Amino acid sequence: MVRWEPDAQGRLRLAAMALFAENGYEQTTVAQIAASAGVTERTFFRYFADKREVLFLGGHELETFLAGHVTAAPPAATPLTAIAGALAAAAAAFFTAEHQVRSRQRHLVISSSPDLQERELLKLASLAAAFAAALRERGVSDPGASLVAESGVAVFKTAFGRWVSGDASQGLADIIEETLAELRAVVCAS
Amino acid sequence: MVRWEPDAQGRLRLAAMALFAENGYEQTTVAQIAASAGVTERTFFRYFADKREVLFLGGHELETFLAGHVTAAPPAATPLTAIAGALAAAAAAFFTAEHQVRSRQRHLVISSSPDLQERELLKLASLAAAFAAALRERGVSDPGASLVAESGVAVFKTAFGRWVSGDASQGLADIIEETLAELRAVVCAS
Repeated sequence: MVRWEPDAQGRLRLAAMALFAENGYEQTTVAQIAASAGVTERTFFRYFADKREVLFLGGHELETFLAGHVTAAPPAATPLTAIAGALAAAAAAFFTAEHQVRSRQRHLVISSSPDLQERELLKLASLAAAFAAALRERGVSDPGASLVAESGVAVFKTAFGRWVSGDASQGLADIIEETLAELRAVVCAS
Repeated sequence: MVRWEPDAQGRLRLAAMALFAENGYEQTTVAQIAASAGVTERTFFRYFADKREVLFLGGHELETFLAGHVTAAPPAATPLTAIAGALAAAAAAFFTAEHQVRSRQRHLVISSSPDLQERELLKLASLAAAFAAALRERGVSDPGASLVAESGVAVFKTAFGRWVSGDASQGLADIIEETLAELRAVVCAS
């Protein structure tokens, strides 16, 4: 019954995002997503555990990428510059101008649901833990490692929110750099 | 049937914490908590929507207290010192040596359950939003307000974890001060 579909996952994701944006996340069913992508529900469940997973696909890979860049930073890099380098690399690899519309759609869907926001917070907490672990491996002791990790995640979250809002015409990498400068300004002024 | 109980809420809370610590959070039922406190289940539900609420009682008051202290900080206070003052005031008011055992018990229970951890993350995100709003009222613009707010919450969370672990023999106010100094050291070194 189930045919092999070239990039069925990609089409399911696009179909889901379009339906979430048009009809709302809560109102959209897996049956509608599958029909819109031209596949069966069974095919949907080969790729995603539930409709929520469509929004969090790739999150684990992003975390691994970011923590890996902290580990691979030059030995002389300070904790915050190691994290800054990782965020800049992620911006260049995953969040270019062509991803902005999709990222904004996702951001709006997540903002619409407390359940999705909780999941997003858990993902960010997991990223902070991965950053802290990577810093400890570099010889950074606690509480410094945890504090820089949390600050780095705050920079990412804040910069990402500005980027998807589209208020700034800059790319995400530039916004991250500005946000880091702002963090240093407010923390070091006092 | 339901008699008025002097400080029934306090006794329910103590009974719940003791049962969570002894038998585990998941295994403890509302019926057991009520029986242990010497009240009916109906009395339990006059004070708490469910057993999870026992662990988050007072969270809203703490947030209001903290944000209020940021608002009331001297005009010359920088954003980070305004938050530092609020955290020190909360430590003196709510987290003295006599609260340490109870806070540690609560911390252990929350660490035992992903559901409770999610709720705790939501509470911390709400605190960061309240800090940022209080800073904006003081004329601090974004993204600085959000970044300092998130950093302040990271300091609180990290310091609190050290305090309840009991590794440090210091009070929470001293640990918060040290943690703030560590934040400044790691952010401003780079």
